[in-house]
Amino acid sequence: MTRQPDFVLVRPQMGENIGAAARAMWNFGLDRMRIVSPRDGWPNPAAAAMASGAGRLLDTAQLFDDTAAAIDDATHVYATTARPRGMTTPVMSPERAMQDAALRLAGGERVSVLFGPERAGLENDDIARANTIITVPVNPAFPSLNLAQCVLLTAYEWRRQAAEVTHEAVVPGPDGWAEAGEVERLAEHYEERLTEAGFFFPEHKAASMRRTLRNLWSRMPLTKADVRIFHGILRQLVRDRDRKT
Amino acid sequence: MTRQPDFVLVRPQMGENIGAAARAMWNFGLDRMRIVSPRDGWPNPAAAAMASGAGRLLDTAQLFDDTAAAIDDATHVYATTARPRGMTTPVMSPERAMQDAALRLAGGERVSVLFGPERAGLENDDIARANTIITVPVNPAFPSLNLAQCVLLTAYEWRRQAAEVTHEAVVPGPDGWAEAGEVERLAEHYEERLTEAGFFFPEHKAASMRRTLRNLWSRMPLTKADVRIFHGILRQLVRDRDRKT
Repeated sequence: MTRQPDFVLVRPQMGENIGAAARAMWNFGLDRMRIVSPRDGWPNPAAAAMASGAGRLLDTAQLFDDTAAAIDDATHVYATTARPRGMTTPVMSPERAMQDAALRLAGGERVSVLFGPERAGLENDDIARANTIITVPVNPAFPSLNLAQCVLLTAYEWRRQAAEVTHEAVVPGPDGWAEAGEVERLAEHYEERLTEAGFFFPEHKAASMRRTLRNLWSRMPLTKADVRIFHGILRQLVRDRDRKT
Repeated sequence: MTRQPDFVLVRPQMGENIGAAARAMWNFGLDRMRIVSPRDGWPNPAAAAMASGAGRLLDTAQLFDDTAAAIDDATHVYATTARPRGMTTPVMSPERAMQDAALRLAGGERVSVLFGPERAGLENDDIARANTIITVPVNPAFPSLNLAQCVLLTAYEWRRQAAEVTHEAVVPGPDGWAEAGEVERLAEHYEERLTEAGFFFPEHKAASMRRTLRNLWSRMPLTKADVRIFHGILRQLVRDRDRKT
C-alpha cells in the first residue's frame, strides 16, 4: 500500500456529504478518512447510502472529538479554505500542496488535510493548527465548491502528484519532524506559562493574541529536537524565576 | 472576455445534474454551455433550482438536436469518457487536454468538450466525432465520477492551464519577513537571558547548545511580527521573574 494522506472532515453536517466525500476519495484511491464530531452522530445511515461502493472508507473511518486529536500524529497539516484570514500561513494551490504532501510522505512523514463543515468552513482555530493552507483557484465571482467537490479536487491532485514523486524528500534531521500533538503541547506549555506571566494583555486582545501565537507555532517547520529546545527554554526561564522568588 | 471552450452536455437526464454542471463550470469561470436533446425537455425547473448562482449559464445555454450540430463550429473536439473503446483517437489526461485547448484557443480556434449522459456515457458515434479523448485517471477499482464531477475536474484543469497569473503566495503579513539582523538580535536576546538563567549547562556542552539554538532561529521563516512576539515572550517572562524576586 502506498503511503497516503489522511483526509479529515471537521464537523461535517449532512451524512450525504460524508458519503459523497468518501466516493470522491476512493475515486482517486484514497481510503484514510478521519471525522471530527459529525453533527448527526456516527455511524450515519445517510452517509452509508450515499457512499455505496466506497462504504468501506466509512467503516474504517476514525472518529475524534476535536481537530487537535485528529491531527495529533501528523507531521504536516494542510487546511482547505477559500478565505485567507490574515494569517501568515503559506497558501498553496491543490497541485502544489499535493506535490509537497507526496514528497513528505515519501520521506516518511504523516500528513493530514483538513476540510471544514459545509456551510461555514473551517474555523480560525482549526486553520491556526495548519502548516499550510490549500486554496482552490475558483472564480472569485462564484466560489461555491461544496465539501465533496473540494475533497474531489484535492484527491485528484493527490493522485496526479503521487505518480510523479519518486526519490526526492524533505529531510528533517536525525529524529524527524515534530508531530502536530507535540507542537500542540508546546503551544499549550507556552500559553500556560505566558498566561501566568500576564502576557495576554489587555483582556479584549487576549483571544487574538493567543491565536496569533498558536498560528506562529504551526507555521514553524519544527523538528522533535526543536520542540525539546523550546520547552527547555521556557522551563529554564520559569525555573530561574521561581528560584529567585 | 477570455476565449474559452464550449462544454457540451450530450443527452443529459436529470435536471439536477445539468444545474450542478453549470455550477461546476462557473466555479472556474466557464459560462459557455451547450446542451444536446436533454431527456426532460428545456427549460428544466430542477436544473434552474440546482444552478442557483450559476443560473445565467442555463439562460444562455444553446440547445441542439444532435451532437453534430452542437459541435458544428468547433475546430477541435474533446470527448470525456472513462472507457477507451479501441479507437485510434489520442487519449489525454484532463491536464494535457486543457493545455492543448488553451493553446488552440490562443491561436484563434474554437474548441468543444463533450460530456455524456449520466448512466451510459457518450456513445461510440459521439466519441467518433472527437479529435481527442479525455480520460480522468481514476482508481480502476472504483471509476464512479458523475457528470458534474467530470465537468468540475475538466473546468478546474481549464482554469489551471489558462491562467497565467498564479494565485499562490507565501504571504508574510503586513510588515513582511524579518531581516537577518533582526533575527540575529532575537537570537542574542535569548542567548543573553538564557545565559543568565543558567540554560547553557553543563559547561562543556554550552558551545554546541548555543550553536544549536542559533541554527534553530535561522531555520524558522520568521516575519517581523513573529520576531516581536518572541522578544515579547522573553521580556514578559523575565519581567515576571524580576517582579517576584
